[in-house]
Amino acid sequence: MNRGEDERPPYNAGMTETPRAVQDRYPDAFAHCYGCGRLNDHGLHVRTFWEGDEAVARFRPEPWHIALPGFVYGGLIASLIDCHGIGAAAAVAERADGRDIGEGPAPRFVTASLHVNFRKPTPLGPELVLRARARAMGGKKVIVDVTLEAVGVITADGEVVAVRIPASMG
Amino acid sequence: MNRGEDERPPYNAGMTETPRAVQDRYPDAFAHCYGCGRLNDHGLHVRTFWEGDEAVARFRPEPWHIALPGFVYGGLIASLIDCHGIGAAAAVAERADGRDIGEGPAPRFVTASLHVNFRKPTPLGPELVLRARARAMGGKKVIVDVTLEAVGVITADGEVVAVRIPASMG
Repeated sequence: MNRGEDERPPYNAGMTETPRAVQDRYPDAFAHCYGCGRLNDHGLHVRTFWEGDEAVARFRPEPWHIALPGFVYGGLIASLIDCHGIGAAAAVAERADGRDIGEGPAPRFVTASLHVNFRKPTPLGPELVLRARARAMGGKKVIVDVTLEAVGVITADGEVVAVRIPASMG
Repeated sequence: MNRGEDERPPYNAGMTETPRAVQDRYPDAFAHCYGCGRLNDHGLHVRTFWEGDEAVARFRPEPWHIALPGFVYGGLIASLIDCHGIGAAAAVAERADGRDIGEGPAPRFVTASLHVNFRKPTPLGPELVLRARARAMGGKKVIVDVTLEAVGVITADGEVVAVRIPASMG
């Protein structure tokens, strides 16, 4: 308990412990991404957490993230699937190394390819829930399957091919 | 000549004729899209024009559309490919009906699926050029291939499966 307190990073200090997102632990040089960088003031701030064996992110679109009236813009959905898929790849790589989120700097992946299926219109208003699982992992590559749901209904899914970049690039 | 003058819509009136984008002619109810809707004050305003047999859009990212420092955010690239692909589908459908852009309301498509390959990092700063061609067309569906280039180099490409929605939905 005391040991855990000592290891907790300063931004998690306080009365209440908040779960740490993968993106909280990207090295600063890699934390400017419009989709998920904590250092991008204009960005979407996608945050990926473990919930059991799934990597999960929750996001509430802004009113202007509209496609046709009443529905979420597909490019936003693609962005969420992309950044959450990359975050999940980082979390999976950490877990494969025997570490949990926050026990070190998160490894940083980039997207080699992104595929999104828009299965039905996604209603604009409710919080969206993204769930990700690694389907394959090998060498520097992780292939991540992602679903996006609104009010419990999956409206889109996708695949992110994530490639690890060397920490030296930062 | 006079006939052309009479048919020109009011927003193209003036001393200089500007080319018309497909998105300028989406019905108002379909013109709120964050990526390409002329009525979305927060949006990206992707605009698709014919250049010969190619549908072309040009876009200069904002400084905050960043992935890793110096490079364009992949979710923005996906958004541009999506909206330009949809615009190209509309332009192709109009041309198949023997009409040019602006000779009537543009038909409105939605995205069934989006695939993007990030072939190399896209430098953040230069104007990006998107080029689209329809690979297949049948029934209500158009499959569009899109490339994205920066300073003459193709850095990403993608495929948009576009499905026409009935005008009555507007």
